[in-house]
Amino acid sequence: MTTASLPPWDSEERNAKRARWQPRNARVIHSSPWIEVELSEPIAPTGRVAQYGMVRFRNRAMGMIPLHEDGTVTLVGQMRYTFDAWSWEIPEGGVPHDEDAMAGARRELREETGFEAASLVEILRLDLSNSVSDEVGIIYLATGLTQGETQWDDTENLEIARVPFKDVLEAVIKGQIRDSLTVAAVLRVYHMAVTGALEASLAAKIV
Amino acid sequence: MTTASLPPWDSEERNAKRARWQPRNARVIHSSPWIEVELSEPIAPTGRVAQYGMVRFRNRAMGMIPLHEDGTVTLVGQMRYTFDAWSWEIPEGGVPHDEDAMAGARRELREETGFEAASLVEILRLDLSNSVSDEVGIIYLATGLTQGETQWDDTENLEIARVPFKDVLEAVIKGQIRDSLTVAAVLRVYHMAVTGALEASLAAKIV
Repeated sequence: MTTASLPPWDSEERNAKRARWQPRNARVIHSSPWIEVELSEPIAPTGRVAQYGMVRFRNRAMGMIPLHEDGTVTLVGQMRYTFDAWSWEIPEGGVPHDEDAMAGARRELREETGFEAASLVEILRLDLSNSVSDEVGIIYLATGLTQGETQWDDTENLEIARVPFKDVLEAVIKGQIRDSLTVAAVLRVYHMAVTGALEASLAAKIV
Repeated sequence: MTTASLPPWDSEERNAKRARWQPRNARVIHSSPWIEVELSEPIAPTGRVAQYGMVRFRNRAMGMIPLHEDGTVTLVGQMRYTFDAWSWEIPEGGVPHDEDAMAGARRELREETGFEAASLVEILRLDLSNSVSDEVGIIYLATGLTQGETQWDDTENLEIARVPFKDVLEAVIKGQIRDSLTVAAVLRVYHMAVTGALEASLAAKIV
């Protein structure tokens, strides 16, 4: 799952013949520890020149859904600057492209919630906003959780809530939880529970 | 579902007391018909000054999952500049904040696939990349589909595929489909099929 392959209705042979974007005149107009903003005039696959503003991410966005044996999930709440609003989410954090993804996910889970996970399994990979950015999201199911100490940085003002999975799923359906990684993680764990990919006693508590 | 409310483990009273981000020194460094890139030095809820680069979207991202009576889904494939890679996705399009969301979704579905939908129902709302942008995604289930003509613009080089829902779901699980709107739409429709929110004969074809 680390390299994207094509689905069965497509083929590498067909893909090799497709016209591609040709990058042109790329220049960086903003650079920070998290992102670069790049403007360019690439040639589109149709042959037309396009004007493109895009965001390159230095980190992958990790989302870890901590599923407890009693069928509850630990969520993190915070004010999101981009929406000027409170957001309840699974624990998340950025992990640089040159750091091992799972090791980074484990560290971010520990820092945000204090939890150590006996098992961390990748369950989904997402391109979060592919019209404008190259941000990749990776979602892990975290189980076998034991509580330790949180380590929050000085722009984080977080709250923790431990909530039955069913309530989290209902909040997703009602649009009360909207963070893309969280929505995808919750619906994927539901799918796992229904299809037998979770331990049966745990699955029985969440569907 | 148009206004985000708080989930049952939270309350408006509690939310009113929370520290917020205070915007400061905002200036736009890039503006296009699609986005604005804004730098600022807001004061975080902790009181610390932050450096923030963010992207404001002029459009909401609409994703319409066209589910046919035979249990197939129509997908659109295209080269994505941001990943320099082919991506299979549900039909998507941008709709300005001041345009009616459902009317825009209907138009975008028609332009990309040629399909008219007898029924278009909002099934999910997402904040796609909330660490860096205010991009909102809205997902519709489109059913009762009749074929008309596509209208592609001159940077679009699209392919259409009509694929069994089960194959699309499997491609999501395997990471062969990664577009966030598509992943969320497919998992949500699966959830609807299992929980009786789809017509029974249709649900039987997809789970």
